[in-house]
Amino acid sequence: MLRTLASLPAIAAIALALPALADDAELRATAKDFFETIPLNPPELNGNVMTRARVDLGAMLFFDPRLSRSNVFSCNSCHNVGMGGVDALETSIGHGWQKGPRNSPTVFNSVFNIAQFWDGRAADLAEQAKGPVQASVEMNNTPERVVETLRSMPGYVEAFAAAFPGEADPVSFENMARAIETFEATLITPNAPFDQFLLGDDAALDEQQKRGLAAFMDTGCIGCHSGINVGGQDYFPFGLVERPGGSVLPEGDRGRFTVTETASDDYVFRAAPLRNIALTAPYFHSGVVWNLEEAVEIMGVSQLGTELTPDQAADIAAFLHSLTGEQPEVPYPVLPERGPDTPLPDPM
Amino acid sequence: MLRTLASLPAIAAIALALPALADDAELRATAKDFFETIPLNPPELNGNVMTRARVDLGAMLFFDPRLSRSNVFSCNSCHNVGMGGVDALETSIGHGWQKGPRNSPTVFNSVFNIAQFWDGRAADLAEQAKGPVQASVEMNNTPERVVETLRSMPGYVEAFAAAFPGEADPVSFENMARAIETFEATLITPNAPFDQFLLGDDAALDEQQKRGLAAFMDTGCIGCHSGINVGGQDYFPFGLVERPGGSVLPEGDRGRFTVTETASDDYVFRAAPLRNIALTAPYFHSGVVWNLEEAVEIMGVSQLGTELTPDQAADIAAFLHSLTGEQPEVPYPVLPERGPDTPLPDPM
Repeated sequence: MLRTLASLPAIAAIALALPALADDAELRATAKDFFETIPLNPPELNGNVMTRARVDLGAMLFFDPRLSRSNVFSCNSCHNVGMGGVDALETSIGHGWQKGPRNSPTVFNSVFNIAQFWDGRAADLAEQAKGPVQASVEMNNTPERVVETLRSMPGYVEAFAAAFPGEADPVSFENMARAIETFEATLITPNAPFDQFLLGDDAALDEQQKRGLAAFMDTGCIGCHSGINVGGQDYFPFGLVERPGGSVLPEGDRGRFTVTETASDDYVFRAAPLRNIALTAPYFHSGVVWNLEEAVEIMGVSQLGTELTPDQAADIAAFLHSLTGEQPEVPYPVLPERGPDTPLPDPM
Repeated sequence: MLRTLASLPAIAAIALALPALADDAELRATAKDFFETIPLNPPELNGNVMTRARVDLGAMLFFDPRLSRSNVFSCNSCHNVGMGGVDALETSIGHGWQKGPRNSPTVFNSVFNIAQFWDGRAADLAEQAKGPVQASVEMNNTPERVVETLRSMPGYVEAFAAAFPGEADPVSFENMARAIETFEATLITPNAPFDQFLLGDDAALDEQQKRGLAAFMDTGCIGCHSGINVGGQDYFPFGLVERPGGSVLPEGDRGRFTVTETASDDYVFRAAPLRNIALTAPYFHSGVVWNLEEAVEIMGVSQLGTELTPDQAADIAAFLHSLTGEQPEVPYPVLPERGPDTPLPDPM
């Protein structure tokens, strides 16, 4: 507590200095040192080609509940393309109504993250896609049963052949993941007000959002939340300065430590990407905070040792609203008809 | 058994007579006495206006899992627009992983049914829409909580005002249902091969399908399955001639009897509409039969007292495949952002 109290004068000084930053050109120049705009088109993928056939197949797979053992859940169940790419639950509900351990991260712009999952345990979206399909609390399936399911439907056999031409055995778990990766890479949200501001439109942010952007940089949020996704680029201890309470940071979830088994990774998580954050409540890997201002205030104390003023938290939250981009237009895919040998749903 | 054995010579006679029916014009003329084509545009609704704003609102509501208490299930969960308008489960999985009592009927072309649900207990789609939202084994919500949820989101308040202009209190449970009805009425599947045949294209059905259509009419299937939806127009006892086994016709589900409390409605159900039936396995209200030929054979015995030959069942199933129409193109709607007072998901 001493630390946060001691920092109050410093905050006051920054607050007084803010009007100087209201010079839009200067604010933009500073921001451009830390952030990048979301491009209009998806980036190239490492070792994966985004052909139309592959993206279309990926869309089918993304929406197909038959990837889950119960046939109840699809990728879209927890990464809902109509809801900012999340399920808006504290933590996701999966197979048998089990509650998962962490809040579902958004699929939108996830192609720009350094790695996937809150602990970065998947290097890319293809690797990520294999996880929930097999997780017992999520889709609870096996690669063998997924491939058996896909091979049993002529529509999928045809779509995999078109998406992976020349391959002897196109219908595979690996190719399922690669196809999903290409579709997910299309789920980007360009043209947020913040991007338009970065590109030169002074009017894209209102005055409060500009104050919020300045505060976001001045108070040190950019130490972890920078780059194209305003986060998602590196790993940091949650509770860098002061560990939050056990509901926000449950003791049992030690984050990246489980991946690396390195003491310094205890309670370390990938800094949350903040693109579309206004759409993706609740917040943190624990998903217990529903209010964006409150999340900002918790971050101030736990990561910066700074008790933000209500005005600062409101300004920063207003800036964060400017990170909401154009939502992807996704036509609902028509899924292949089952075949006589398609495994039956197994909800039990 | 005696009954079905006795009818075999009659079937053989029909089978021999079939080549005569291969005259396309005659087959078409007979079929047009019993069936209608699916129109290219949705029909007018009784007391509900299909404005663009209302249909768009209906689409949002149809896809919004926040209509359910848990925030896990939307209308689309059990009436998946990518899967023939069904969930392809024996019976649906709902709140708390409870298994519902009956197989989910397709939403596609449901606007043409005489009434909704397997027992016809809802007069129209608006009335139907109110059911699953409240059913404890489905979405387990209350009208009050739904309205509170919708009113808490500015995006919905605006969308309801646009969809129901001039109304003093547009955000209501009733208007939710009316908006969903307009969207669902757009989910029609015209231009099935069968429709094209009815409209004059001899080549739209292959020879087996034409034999199947003839058999469908000759053996008496049309007694219950006729009209625009090839069913869905009236109520009949399941087991009209011979009651099927308890797995297909569970004793505990007495069908329309529960609605009318009339002895003659015991085990009476609305004849299933057969449009897109090849996409909507499993079959019957119990959802225990996955194979279309098998379903046809069961119907032969239970409803017609006729043990269809495997060839006849295959021909009829081939004809039923010709009822698969153009699937609706549905853009995934962007759902409104939650507000500060939006009720939290309650999965427990």
